[in-house]
Amino acid sequence: MDPSEFRRHGHALVEWIAEYLSGAERYPVLPRVEPGDVRDALPDSAPEEGEPFDRIFADFERVLLPALTHWNHPGFFAYFATSASASGVLAEFLSAALNQQAMLWRTSPAATELEEVSLAWLRRLMGLPDAFEGVIYDTASIASLHALAAAREAEVPDVREKGLAGRDDVGRLRVYCSEHAHSSIDKAVLMLGLGHSSLRRIPADDAFSMRAGELRAALDDDRGARITPIAVVATIGTTSTTSVDPVREIADICRDERVWLHVDAAYAGVTAMIPEYRAHFTGWERADSIVVNPHKWLFTPFDLSAFYCRRMDVVRQAFSLVPEYLRTAEGSRGVRNLMDTGVQLGRRFRSLKLWMILRHFGAERIRGVLREHIRLAHGFAAWVDAHPDFERVAPVPFSVVCFRAKPRDLTLTASELDAFNERLMEAVNASGDVFLSHTRLNGMLVLRLAIGHLRTTAQHTARAWELLCAHTAELARH
Amino acid sequence: MDPSEFRRHGHALVEWIAEYLSGAERYPVLPRVEPGDVRDALPDSAPEEGEPFDRIFADFERVLLPALTHWNHPGFFAYFATSASASGVLAEFLSAALNQQAMLWRTSPAATELEEVSLAWLRRLMGLPDAFEGVIYDTASIASLHALAAAREAEVPDVREKGLAGRDDVGRLRVYCSEHAHSSIDKAVLMLGLGHSSLRRIPADDAFSMRAGELRAALDDDRGARITPIAVVATIGTTSTTSVDPVREIADICRDERVWLHVDAAYAGVTAMIPEYRAHFTGWERADSIVVNPHKWLFTPFDLSAFYCRRMDVVRQAFSLVPEYLRTAEGSRGVRNLMDTGVQLGRRFRSLKLWMILRHFGAERIRGVLREHIRLAHGFAAWVDAHPDFERVAPVPFSVVCFRAKPRDLTLTASELDAFNERLMEAVNASGDVFLSHTRLNGMLVLRLAIGHLRTTAQHTARAWELLCAHTAELARH
Repeated sequence: MDPSEFRRHGHALVEWIAEYLSGAERYPVLPRVEPGDVRDALPDSAPEEGEPFDRIFADFERVLLPALTHWNHPGFFAYFATSASASGVLAEFLSAALNQQAMLWRTSPAATELEEVSLAWLRRLMGLPDAFEGVIYDTASIASLHALAAAREAEVPDVREKGLAGRDDVGRLRVYCSEHAHSSIDKAVLMLGLGHSSLRRIPADDAFSMRAGELRAALDDDRGARITPIAVVATIGTTSTTSVDPVREIADICRDERVWLHVDAAYAGVTAMIPEYRAHFTGWERADSIVVNPHKWLFTPFDLSAFYCRRMDVVRQAFSLVPEYLRTAEGSRGVRNLMDTGVQLGRRFRSLKLWMILRHFGAERIRGVLREHIRLAHGFAAWVDAHPDFERVAPVPFSVVCFRAKPRDLTLTASELDAFNERLMEAVNASGDVFLSHTRLNGMLVLRLAIGHLRTTAQHTARAWELLCAHTAELARH
Repeated sequence: MDPSEFRRHGHALVEWIAEYLSGAERYPVLPRVEPGDVRDALPDSAPEEGEPFDRIFADFERVLLPALTHWNHPGFFAYFATSASASGVLAEFLSAALNQQAMLWRTSPAATELEEVSLAWLRRLMGLPDAFEGVIYDTASIASLHALAAAREAEVPDVREKGLAGRDDVGRLRVYCSEHAHSSIDKAVLMLGLGHSSLRRIPADDAFSMRAGELRAALDDDRGARITPIAVVATIGTTSTTSVDPVREIADICRDERVWLHVDAAYAGVTAMIPEYRAHFTGWERADSIVVNPHKWLFTPFDLSAFYCRRMDVVRQAFSLVPEYLRTAEGSRGVRNLMDTGVQLGRRFRSLKLWMILRHFGAERIRGVLREHIRLAHGFAAWVDAHPDFERVAPVPFSVVCFRAKPRDLTLTASELDAFNERLMEAVNASGDVFLSHTRLNGMLVLRLAIGHLRTTAQHTARAWELLCAHTAELARH
């Protein structure tokens, strides 16, 4: 593509994206396609001859656009709602063109040092001490994987050289987390060769927070059975309910037991920027490692997960390995090479978008948007609480409301009520105006309304509520 | 940022990127900055008040641009040269705006199915059978990590549940690769809890290819010592020299020994599209898994690594795990959810760029560019071969030339000759016109000229050669 062609298609794309970012509401948030529709609409093979970009883009609009789930729709309330802010999108455009590969300082001094600077900015905004060194990974799954790898490195003698298998000097190992911790913790223990049975899920209290007493008992129990604890994962903002584990008490236990403490604050971490929410985070400054995802609730396009670690030397000890073809003079002089902090050698210039977003929004506006999302969630929770056909199922510490319909005039068994709510969710989602997802709490199927998109307003939560009420009444009639 | 602002900044960025993609030659390929320059030029904290995008972009130009290593410069000959093609950059721009999260079919039917379609296109172009199911990861490091995790899953009973530690029914395990295999294989065995000692590096022959006989002997030796082989990694296009392991013979051994065969063709895999290069790939169609990186030599902006596996069910068996909050109706109906094939839950819409690039270039032009890069490499190798002050150190199967200066009039010890070549590399790189990296072969420091950028022409390889000759003469005089 010559520069004039690039200009032409680039300018057209800017126009298209400008419309899209501000007008995704014109599309149904969940697409109306069936499995196989996209595949069946496309040829089996790549073309031999190149095609003009216009024709490719026309096929994007014809085949792919109707099959997108619109994460950019302000009625997206499923999972955790996210936003690709305009400044983040522009940063990604630039980053793609620059095509930096920040494996070594030499291969991108700018990306290497901006990663340090932008993560320091975010760390200070969240009130974490400078002792936390930061590194950007793609996802929280990878961040938590590295955290637990470092915990294993710290606890198991010679694990880097000798591994875990076929050793009679290494007994059973254990990782602890709440029963509400994210599935990425399970996947991490699988990857690390610890096995699923190494993960002990600690029961939660009525607010879905880990019971610290149960954690202490589990540790004692395991020590008695000659099982070695290697890490505890505390969550600030669990996936189902955004509940908060008692991090201060867990940090005390980890200190007493000399066990690695990893804090998963992938979703809620950014609210540490807000003084009145800082209380949720008491004790996290004593963690060994923390993960916070700007791509969740900091308006950052996928992917960018921020990993902070007090003991990054242990991560490096676990993974640093410099083959001759990657040795550089600066490396010998002690410069920081990002490839040393993980398994992934290739690294995109992700810090560019974080830096641009933090500057373009400014801290005060970020706090304002987060406060507004939380306010909207509390407003929705109040509607639920006030309605006789609904019940709220969990506290609302942040911007997610867990609730279910429980029509007062119907007598339904537990499983009938689950089925009712599942049908309700499908009916509401079929509107195209909103997208809600579910979870299961205390055995019940529960709906979740997760607020996190930059353009979500009271109008969108009101629409969700209107649809929920209407469909509940409708379903209750039949 | 409102739509009119986005338009203004977006259009300006299109103009800037159009200039950049076609004119990166105006910048020195290696930046002239010292460690700390970028960090010291930026404030310690994020601003409280938001800033206009123009000002942020001005700081990008002032502070970051001079600290970029220009991977987009056609004189980039280090590591493996890569390109962010214009169509790939536009696709990434669109992908950032769409902000798809392809963890579930439901969360992006388009991204889920386009991943299948675009990987099938690439697979067919490379002549691999349909039995290979594909998935996109960020990097080859992650792809090979999953390959070896699957090999471990296939070999070690109950490893998913029980892990590797504290078991008397699991003995020592072994992974095999050539002494020239990439460091990502080392990092994978560290992550998997196999330990570095589980990796047995098989000696190579004079052409830097694994000696199949040595592999067979190592397997016999280990079986005799009650060590269980779990995988062999064969490389087509090693990092130092792009040498090719004898995949056919290795595949025979793996069949006989019932061991997982993973083929690392991250760099060279795309040349399987060219009939006259297909011979290098004989036997790879019998591998259990293969990794090919479009972000290396298929003009695709970082990151996109294609993983093909004959036994993706084993990958899923190792990692699939569906918490309630990610359960969907389609999932229950057997639709493919990409989160099941790995540890990373979050997945960008990477297939969009692969699809757009394959269509915009067309297969015939891709083959043409690859052939031209290989032709340029052979031309450079001929210059080296013909010059009395240089020697070539490895065959040139693809587009990388390994060579060193060896001035005929100087009598240098081995370490003096290494130092001479290191100084030569630094001098040539200081020109700003080219960037070469090095490796070590048979104990010697060796320079590498790696061709892979879309805009690299004979003029750029000639400039590299001119600089090498001039600086060699200059250094030899002093």
